[in-house]
Amino acid sequence: MDRPSFAVFIATSADGFIARPDGRVDWLEPFQTPGEDYGYAAFAASVDALVIGRKTYDTVLAFPEWPYAGKKVVVWTRGEDAPKHGARFLSAEPAALAATLHAEGVRKVYLDGGRTISAFLAADLVDELTVSIVPRVLGDGIPLFRPPLPDLALALLEAKPYPNGLVQLRWKRVRP
Amino acid sequence: MDRPSFAVFIATSADGFIARPDGRVDWLEPFQTPGEDYGYAAFAASVDALVIGRKTYDTVLAFPEWPYAGKKVVVWTRGEDAPKHGARFLSAEPAALAATLHAEGVRKVYLDGGRTISAFLAADLVDELTVSIVPRVLGDGIPLFRPPLPDLALALLEAKPYPNGLVQLRWKRVRP
Repeated sequence: MDRPSFAVFIATSADGFIARPDGRVDWLEPFQTPGEDYGYAAFAASVDALVIGRKTYDTVLAFPEWPYAGKKVVVWTRGEDAPKHGARFLSAEPAALAATLHAEGVRKVYLDGGRTISAFLAADLVDELTVSIVPRVLGDGIPLFRPPLPDLALALLEAKPYPNGLVQLRWKRVRP
Repeated sequence: MDRPSFAVFIATSADGFIARPDGRVDWLEPFQTPGEDYGYAAFAASVDALVIGRKTYDTVLAFPEWPYAGKKVVVWTRGEDAPKHGARFLSAEPAALAATLHAEGVRKVYLDGGRTISAFLAADLVDELTVSIVPRVLGDGIPLFRPPLPDLALALLEAKPYPNGLVQLRWKRVRP
């Protein structure tokens, strides 16, 4: 492939939201169990770069420690203030951004942030989706899949239920 | 419980749609395999009544055979033309409809149709949800969960992957 692969690793409600309308993820707290990361560390170790949205970046900046040390981080934004921790602010179209990262030798990208994920889905650049479905209807919020998107065939790689009722589905994109 | 229980048994795309914007379900065809009903017959046998939307009713009317013989069928509509096959047209609010069915001795209702399901979810009358998730992003369509709905805690009863990549999740509503 002449571009990096792009992977999503995210939790949603049963009704497909990644956050409440105001961005809150309080409903995930009961599922943040010590000693259970739902495969996050292994996933994070498999990527060499991240492309994240501005809100995700600002959220992560407020963490006590920058969690992406050692990874190339692109914040997909038109923002012009100075990024921290070696991150870059880029606003290229997804395909152009993929080409830039490919030229830099990036092989696998972790995509995060609602708008960012949907923009890359719209460009059919998402190759793998790991979605952890929490047993709760939020009723409203920020959707993982923002219509309209293209019609995309997937293949199920794994369906893993956890004792607390979370189910993690892992799909890969199947292109004709 | 002084009302019947209400159960949903439905297929969605990975992005939570039950049909394309125009109502088409062509994307389900690859999953209609002879000899595999994903538990539908057992589910149907467990209900004594159906509450379905007008579109679902019209769709089912066009089938070569009426599939709900022996069940009480309510079409949730303001329509005033004459229903067939012993169905009734009712337009009461969900709670009033539940009370009517309870008075008639109904114990478990199969809810079908996008608007109907969301109206009963909005009234917090849905007790069980069986959702078969097909490995495909449709990109747009008629959602299973129409915002805004209330915040509803669920418990996972089962997560069952099929060899063709469909995953069936079964949740029950957990009320405080």
